[in-house]
Amino acid sequence: MSEQDPLVIFTPSGKRGRVAAGTSVLQAARDLGVDVDSVCGGHGICSKCMVRPSFGTHDKHGITAKPEALSEVNSVERAYVKKKGINPDRRMGCQTQILGDIVIDVPAESQVHKQVVRKAATTRVIEMDPATRALYIEVEVPDMHTPTGDWERVATALKEQWDLIALPPSLTVLTKLQATLAKNDYKVTLALHTAHEGQTRVLDVWGGFEEPPLYGLAVDLGSTTIAAHLTDLKSGEVKASGGVMNPQIRYGEDLMSRVSYAMMNPGGAAEMTKAVREALNQLAGDLAHEADVSRSEIYDIVIVMNPVMHHILMGLDPVPLGQAPFALATASSLDLNASDIGLTLADQAQAYILPLIAGHVGADAAAVALSEAPQEKDPLTLIVDVGTNAEILLGNKTRVLACSSPTGPAFEGAQISSGQRAANGAIERIEIDPVTKEPRFRVIGIKQWSDEKGFDKKIGRTGITGICGSGIIEAVAEMRMAGILDAAGLIGSAEAAGTERCRATGRTHEYVIYDGSENGGPTITVTQGDIRAIQLAKSALYAGARLLMDEFGTDTVDRVVLAGAFGAHISPKHAMVLGMIPDCPLEHVTSAGNAAGTGAQIALLNVQSRRKIEALVHDITKVETAIEPRFQEHFVAANAIPHATDPFTGLRAIVPLPEPSFNSGDAGGSRRRRRRG
Amino acid sequence: MSEQDPLVIFTPSGKRGRVAAGTSVLQAARDLGVDVDSVCGGHGICSKCMVRPSFGTHDKHGITAKPEALSEVNSVERAYVKKKGINPDRRMGCQTQILGDIVIDVPAESQVHKQVVRKAATTRVIEMDPATRALYIEVEVPDMHTPTGDWERVATALKEQWDLIALPPSLTVLTKLQATLAKNDYKVTLALHTAHEGQTRVLDVWGGFEEPPLYGLAVDLGSTTIAAHLTDLKSGEVKASGGVMNPQIRYGEDLMSRVSYAMMNPGGAAEMTKAVREALNQLAGDLAHEADVSRSEIYDIVIVMNPVMHHILMGLDPVPLGQAPFALATASSLDLNASDIGLTLADQAQAYILPLIAGHVGADAAAVALSEAPQEKDPLTLIVDVGTNAEILLGNKTRVLACSSPTGPAFEGAQISSGQRAANGAIERIEIDPVTKEPRFRVIGIKQWSDEKGFDKKIGRTGITGICGSGIIEAVAEMRMAGILDAAGLIGSAEAAGTERCRATGRTHEYVIYDGSENGGPTITVTQGDIRAIQLAKSALYAGARLLMDEFGTDTVDRVVLAGAFGAHISPKHAMVLGMIPDCPLEHVTSAGNAAGTGAQIALLNVQSRRKIEALVHDITKVETAIEPRFQEHFVAANAIPHATDPFTGLRAIVPLPEPSFNSGDAGGSRRRRRRG
Repeated sequence: MSEQDPLVIFTPSGKRGRVAAGTSVLQAARDLGVDVDSVCGGHGICSKCMVRPSFGTHDKHGITAKPEALSEVNSVERAYVKKKGINPDRRMGCQTQILGDIVIDVPAESQVHKQVVRKAATTRVIEMDPATRALYIEVEVPDMHTPTGDWERVATALKEQWDLIALPPSLTVLTKLQATLAKNDYKVTLALHTAHEGQTRVLDVWGGFEEPPLYGLAVDLGSTTIAAHLTDLKSGEVKASGGVMNPQIRYGEDLMSRVSYAMMNPGGAAEMTKAVREALNQLAGDLAHEADVSRSEIYDIVIVMNPVMHHILMGLDPVPLGQAPFALATASSLDLNASDIGLTLADQAQAYILPLIAGHVGADAAAVALSEAPQEKDPLTLIVDVGTNAEILLGNKTRVLACSSPTGPAFEGAQISSGQRAANGAIERIEIDPVTKEPRFRVIGIKQWSDEKGFDKKIGRTGITGICGSGIIEAVAEMRMAGILDAAGLIGSAEAAGTERCRATGRTHEYVIYDGSENGGPTITVTQGDIRAIQLAKSALYAGARLLMDEFGTDTVDRVVLAGAFGAHISPKHAMVLGMIPDCPLEHVTSAGNAAGTGAQIALLNVQSRRKIEALVHDITKVETAIEPRFQEHFVAANAIPHATDPFTGLRAIVPLPEPSFNSGDAGGSRRRRRRG
Repeated sequence: MSEQDPLVIFTPSGKRGRVAAGTSVLQAARDLGVDVDSVCGGHGICSKCMVRPSFGTHDKHGITAKPEALSEVNSVERAYVKKKGINPDRRMGCQTQILGDIVIDVPAESQVHKQVVRKAATTRVIEMDPATRALYIEVEVPDMHTPTGDWERVATALKEQWDLIALPPSLTVLTKLQATLAKNDYKVTLALHTAHEGQTRVLDVWGGFEEPPLYGLAVDLGSTTIAAHLTDLKSGEVKASGGVMNPQIRYGEDLMSRVSYAMMNPGGAAEMTKAVREALNQLAGDLAHEADVSRSEIYDIVIVMNPVMHHILMGLDPVPLGQAPFALATASSLDLNASDIGLTLADQAQAYILPLIAGHVGADAAAVALSEAPQEKDPLTLIVDVGTNAEILLGNKTRVLACSSPTGPAFEGAQISSGQRAANGAIERIEIDPVTKEPRFRVIGIKQWSDEKGFDKKIGRTGITGICGSGIIEAVAEMRMAGILDAAGLIGSAEAAGTERCRATGRTHEYVIYDGSENGGPTITVTQGDIRAIQLAKSALYAGARLLMDEFGTDTVDRVVLAGAFGAHISPKHAMVLGMIPDCPLEHVTSAGNAAGTGAQIALLNVQSRRKIEALVHDITKVETAIEPRFQEHFVAANAIPHATDPFTGLRAIVPLPEPSFNSGDAGGSRRRRRRG
């Protein structure tokens, strides 16, 4: 795309890029990895892809959109409007072409992830070298004087014409090959899968020269969410992206409760295996339908997941992962037939499972390593993938270390008094005025902040339902910066904190973010218990990172990368105020989005990357937090919420207030061994 | 076994050997590969194993058996006699111990092969080196500081303790491995399959040190008969042998009619695939039951068969094999999961399919080559495996050639006026007195010749029902030697042949072997049409052999080996009189029995032999008879039935008669270009 091409900016994701003039909004959204729903595949039937263009000056985005930036309403749209009616500020994404610079908002109802699954595709340049590809060969015709089989002549052609060494085919493929060769003058196109050099497998065959449809799935199988991209293996184009809730949720919210379920219930593991395989099949089917392809055209699938999900999907017993020594049944990468794990894709579809790093550190962490490639960089990079468990990687060109840390589900809004999953109605961002101690916040599904015009009108529709993971982190950090919370993590009284929003509840206090009692809605507060839960979680995360730093022999890191479904939504500033991550210049803290999903996509589209990650995982130094005494020390030491005037973060300007203490002694301060100076 | 051990000779098979004193007759029979039935597995329940010991002097066998050569009737036998009665000359094979030299007759009703399946085990020394074996390993216990998977530690143990490189296991095996390791202190016994060096696959696992049951099946899948040996893979001991009719018979007696069935009936090939797979499963189950083992203890199966049977069993289309260029779907040896071809054995049972030599020359011929190993010998050996198709091998240390020849089913008694399969009631041997021209014959199921005492009594029970393949060959050859038939193959009139047994039928004559009209039974004759059918078949066989000799550049062979179900029963003398095979000193003509079955057994018990036969098949020069003009020449030239005074055969003494001719010219004589001198 050149500077001449229209620039399109999607909100709320902020994703932007240039597209060829005439590209449909839906296509542009897909090209840029923007979450826009479609069921009919862009035929103007399903109306799932309705978007809201913004014209006029957009200082924020630096572009001015003219009405002629979009194509006029066409006959398909007109027919639809006539039949069903369309909100006048909306356009049909699949029918509307982009002709000039434009900002386009994707309303929540037009997103696939209606549960606001926060694992979206990250655009990233991947060198295409997929394991599965189609090649045309001309095979010698049979000659009774030199009697060889069809297969042997195909293998010879593959060797001579493509320098490929073929593995014996399955009997199913051989049968199809036999029929297709004879009917097509021994000229055929083959779908080939080269899992390892010198080991090419024929997956399918077509008569003559064809450009057959070949699709792949990259799946990030999380404890909570299963996210997948359906990708054209020829072009690397993502044809559809989507997510479903992991149905194992009903067997336990976090991993350990699922391990318990397997332990306590005979057949429980098998039940969960069945549930997750069904969900994967369902997701594959939905994405195929959305992209208007057949699921039998999906020839390759790459799955990344943590060790517990891994064992359950494979039909292995997850129980040993619940207690020391956390013995894995297998840690290696796996090349399987997709049917081995109950997936109904192309008949011979192959599956690649990234290697596990350790009993607690999974293929998802391996995928993050593949995506972020710390081993290729000079700066020492700390990568934290925050989910129910945190996976932590630390390394540079010299070596890479990994561990996992049992943060628990507090960061996901669970075990928090007003906590909830990230979904419409949840407070996801919060700011507290250091002087007035009054909060303002943003709610998922609503563009405006709570003190902005139009918020009240909107909120009437959605309601405020709770606070999600990113919201609670910001709340705690903001409370600390506003002097409502001391370093030890105690919430001050109304008097001490200087705001009536601090209310006594028994022997402790809570801070009221939103009083919904007038509207009959819930009142959202941060309790002392919530603070403790966040302190435990962030101490675990921080202690894991520190442990790796000890092992590496360093007190500082050069860069911090926040990855994971949740990492994409954490504000680096607040994470550092909270002490989730070690100090690092704020501009060197970045979010990698769903790096695990990106890693899966890389492995799908580039077979060499599979060798790369296998080698890296082999070389990674694994650190087991569960039995490391220093982890406990770091954990205890990290309990405090840091002083907010760290020279590295530049936060002094933001928080010029004196340091409060709501307890007799400064317990937090004295323990803060990890702080420099 | 030493000279001190009792010598046991089984009739009618003639199999003999020394066994430890105290060995049961049933066990001895099994050890020596003698066909004795047992359903209860030697527990004295089923009485299938009744045998008839012969005491006194046996000049023929060179031993004198005393009554004390067998153990006394024991309580099990007594109980059985009391309950059901036993023919007083019979003993229960499983209860009777061999204590001294003895001759034991196995009556037809005590043979497994009640259809007189003529494929029996050939005793042969095989160096035990099976692909499947059990090994004990001690695996490192999991250590959370060096997190590896159970599988990776098993692979390490296999490498360190047995120098084996393991392939990744199936998920099923991995699951079993995971559970068994943890429960058994990480000490396990594995069933391992090493199909190729450096590629060991775990098939099964047991806790601790075990000597688990490991059985294998060697199968000769013929067009008419499926014969198999169930063998202990640890000892090489054949635990049970048996055969069933190939159920595909109902789709056509010979291969080409089955190909036609597949061509004419949609789904016909699939129907035949199902039928033969079911028969294999049935046979496996029956043998397992007989040997008192579980079919889930069968871990390896080797199958040899002709190309049409091969394609049908694999689910490949056999139709291309019905016409030039006779294109095989695959010719290579195949390593499969037994379940890939619908076999229900051990969960992970492996299957090895020997390579096909050419479109008409199958894995059965390859198995014959493996068994007879012409490539290892100096003498030039001609091997003919006579069935519905004849496979012919010719070679020595310098090179080996192969072809097949469409003999048709005449040699098996089909397309013969009084012909029938080899079964009770069929004439299988015949002699014609050259002076009186009177025949004497033997019938399957009756020990005596037709002119011996007791025959008439016996025949009353069985009846004479027809003439089988070996019978018709002997009949034609004897007719020729007795001057009833001239060189051109014409049957003389009563006057010309000098016997009233020659009767006119229309313009030709027939020879009456047995007139059953008095007894209400069939009259068995050899008609002029029968002679023509045999002439066509033997010409095809001879022409194939000659073609290979031409290719080899020789006019003589040093040895002739008759193989195949039928080869075991052909009299070499009669085969040579008939001109089925080239001249060769009679003492250098031997029968290899079911050499294809033996080859399968070798491949089952010695994995190196698989590489050997693959290399040999690769190197064999394939000669296609169907399009070779010289085949036609040889075929026409071979039509005559040779002069019976060949100096090489030593037949002059037997046939001192003048050479008759029942036609105007000596057509046969003038055509006999192939005769030397």
